Amino acid sequence: MLPFSTLIQIDRDSGMPVYQQVANRLIQLIQEGRIQPGAFLPGTRDLAATLQLHRKTVVAAYTELERQDWIRSLPRKGVQVSPELPEIKPRSFRPGGGAAAYKGTTGFVFTRQAQQPTQLQAKGFRLVINDGFPDVRESPLPLLIRECRRLSQTRVYAPRLMYGLASGTEELRRALARHLAASRGLSIESENLMITRGAQMSIYLAAALLIKPGDKVIVGASNYRYADLCFQQLGATLIRVPVDDQGMDVNAVAAVCRRSKVRMLYVVPHHHHPTTVTLSAERRMQLLELIRERNLAVIEDDYDYDFHYASGPILPLASGDHGGNVLYIGSMTKSLALSIRVGFLVAPADFIEEAARLRRLMDLRGDNLIEEALAALIDSGDIDRHLKKSNKLFRERRDVFCDLLEEALGGLITFKKPDGGMAVWARFPKRYSLPKLSARAADLGLLISDGSSYRSPESTENGMRLGFASLTPAEIKEAIGLLQKAASV
Amino acid sequence: MLPFSTLIQIDRDSGMPVYQQVANRLIQLIQEGRIQPGAFLPGTRDLAATLQLHRKTVVAAYTELERQDWIRSLPRKGVQVSPELPEIKPRSFRPGGGAAAYKGTTGFVFTRQAQQPTQLQAKGFRLVINDGFPDVRESPLPLLIRECRRLSQTRVYAPRLMYGLASGTEELRRALARHLAASRGLSIESENLMITRGAQMSIYLAAALLIKPGDKVIVGASNYRYADLCFQQLGATLIRVPVDDQGMDVNAVAAVCRRSKVRMLYVVPHHHHPTTVTLSAERRMQLLELIRERNLAVIEDDYDYDFHYASGPILPLASGDHGGNVLYIGSMTKSLALSIRVGFLVAPADFIEEAARLRRLMDLRGDNLIEEALAALIDSGDIDRHLKKSNKLFRERRDVFCDLLEEALGGLITFKKPDGGMAVWARFPKRYSLPKLSARAADLGLLISDGSSYRSPESTENGMRLGFASLTPAEIKEAIGLLQKAASV
Repeated sequence: MLPFSTLIQIDRDSGMPVYQQVANRLIQLIQEGRIQPGAFLPGTRDLAATLQLHRKTVVAAYTELERQDWIRSLPRKGVQVSPELPEIKPRSFRPGGGAAAYKGTTGFVFTRQAQQPTQLQAKGFRLVINDGFPDVRESPLPLLIRECRRLSQTRVYAPRLMYGLASGTEELRRALARHLAASRGLSIESENLMITRGAQMSIYLAAALLIKPGDKVIVGASNYRYADLCFQQLGATLIRVPVDDQGMDVNAVAAVCRRSKVRMLYVVPHHHHPTTVTLSAERRMQLLELIRERNLAVIEDDYDYDFHYASGPILPLASGDHGGNVLYIGSMTKSLALSIRVGFLVAPADFIEEAARLRRLMDLRGDNLIEEALAALIDSGDIDRHLKKSNKLFRERRDVFCDLLEEALGGLITFKKPDGGMAVWARFPKRYSLPKLSARAADLGLLISDGSSYRSPESTENGMRLGFASLTPAEIKEAIGLLQKAASV
Repeated sequence: MLPFSTLIQIDRDSGMPVYQQVANRLIQLIQEGRIQPGAFLPGTRDLAATLQLHRKTVVAAYTELERQDWIRSLPRKGVQVSPELPEIKPRSFRPGGGAAAYKGTTGFVFTRQAQQPTQLQAKGFRLVINDGFPDVRESPLPLLIRECRRLSQTRVYAPRLMYGLASGTEELRRALARHLAASRGLSIESENLMITRGAQMSIYLAAALLIKPGDKVIVGASNYRYADLCFQQLGATLIRVPVDDQGMDVNAVAAVCRRSKVRMLYVVPHHHHPTTVTLSAERRMQLLELIRERNLAVIEDDYDYDFHYASGPILPLASGDHGGNVLYIGSMTKSLALSIRVGFLVAPADFIEEAARLRRLMDLRGDNLIEEALAALIDSGDIDRHLKKSNKLFRERRDVFCDLLEEALGGLITFKKPDGGMAVWARFPKRYSLPKLSARAADLGLLISDGSSYRSPESTENGMRLGFASLTPAEIKEAIGLLQKAASV
């Protein structure tokens, strides 16, 4: 008889019933070839004694094995492992069973993947200056949770939870279409709108529908890194055009369009990422004309629309006359202070339908509960009120941050106080090592970027975004103090 | 002077301040070429009179325009549209402005997309027999909401909400790794686990990392439709093997592997979709050996693990000795009764890292709030208790459903009472028209599938899944009554 007392270890703390553990272990032993087809298992009384279990437990385990066709009971002969099972050469014993396979690395060759910057991992740091996030401590999460509760208690809710479209719940699409019409001059219906998991999914979907491997895509010399990577992952060749203090160089875009077949332009007219510059009125008009003239497909990423302190919000290109060529992408994630990630895509109706089809293959649909709760918050004006409050708060923080930054590091860096958004674009001298600065800051307990996610091969920038919105004035003071210390080593 | 009283319409019900509406409309008129660069705008007093607004409102609008560089104030001359703006040929007037572009269809050519079955839209139906969903009226949503509230009130929460990995929060990965080890015999650490939006995202990510256009993928002759479509979207050629009452024909899989270079096998060993059959013990062992021998990459989709009524749960292939070749995919969505869509992928650590990189490009990361709340529910045993309750309930419903179904339609259809899961696979006579049945049922207020999503070109099946779990016994009685009526026409 096999040394069952060693081979079958019962874990009384696991949530799994003991009989199930015995059955599963026996299945593993059969699968590993340590118990062969046709072999007889010990009688229930014997195995119970060996394992120090109640006999009923072993009987239950055997019943389970029989139900699953691993064994059969032969009257007067005992319990036999099904002789129909294939014979397996016994394999060397590995503790923990065969799934130890997962410990190593796979032999799979992966499809090509773009290299990505390292992720900020805030754990263990005293303070973080991030890319420009809102303050989650001020998030409207309690409102969202309240709506979820209310909804879950209504009668209409159950059926709505079960079925839904990949383009988003009707309630949220309607509420958001109204909201975008009112706030951004977009003349759209809900058929022009798709709800996604954050703006990133909208970028991926829109790009995946347009880009075939080898296609040319125009982006800024400095650009939002995860848009670049997304287009590259889809097989695009990036053509970079300069970005100066008026935003993207539209003459350069026109020149590229003249000499190459361009599939798409990706542009962030409002608070370009990373440099925070806004496309000037002149270039906006020039770009709109180019779009119409060339029927140039454009992804307009307007991630930062809701946050502006100096002037009012800048109308998106999508509200202009673009002949249906502008795919407009925005985000509710920052308005919700990161509690929940929700983005949206605005496009002609047939494009939305195609995008919904692709989305189903990646992620059947969104969470109806969350989408309906958000619709209610938009309709009630709660989101608008939250944004008003946030804008006031973040404007104050921007002012404190910029004053202290100028005082502490004005000799080293150059920056412009941003009109909106949640980050300052800080330019360092050409040869200044941001990875070293980041490492020294980390030693002091301050997490900042090492600049790598803001750099492209064609960019002449040496800078990083310094997010101010998620820090209180006291935290700003401390963080900038640490940054100054790190820079002065 | 332009007819500003017609051109500038104020909507007092929109949430947008009136001055902002005036400014935005003027920007549109400039962008459309109806107001030319260098032109003078009316004085604030005149425009205010024309629009019947307070003069201060027009002053605010002009200030906004000046901040955005659209106009400039010339002392003693008036307000001039910036002469630096490009001249635009005036375009014919379109009501609603240029964004009317979105109303039509786009001129874009999309990348190839797989055709998809029509979606169930439950609206307006009295009853729905679905693909096999849990009953959302019994969902643990109140528990999830309670955890979200509790978490949002803790101090540690704010920092955790801000940063996070594309592979999921550490809390949920740890909790789920423990849970999967205890319940499914998977010997894994959290590094082997990735949290996704529902199982569909896991399927997409795993397949996207493996499949290059032209690669061969083995699937069942009948198969989960959105897996087929996902692989096809990624460029795979599907090779179909028979599925009989013992599950997928493993000899056929082996034969395909001998004659072709196969990239991947997709298999649903437990409750195959759509036919609900479970792979026999013999074929499981055979398949595990084939996987080891050939180093065959496998996606094991175990969407239905948590629901079993006759025998205990069937251990996944992933718990056997597979040499790290099995990518195991599961779902919490049904355990959460669809409240929130959460799935997971189990794989070697380097595969998880690659999958996380790709996921960032599609959807930066999940909702930390939800993930941490779910982790708490797993750790507290709430999910297990909910599943125990659900299994009892759904088992009763299955029995009622199968009895009534046999009584009402036993002469027409054949089916086997399923051991678990939430649907019966009903086979209809070869030539029986399911679309017609579906249409007749719809007339009676009952929504059922038209069978299209269960059919593949190579399948000889003519059937549909009849989900029983989301209906009470009274609803089951009514639904089957309607189905009988529809079938008897």
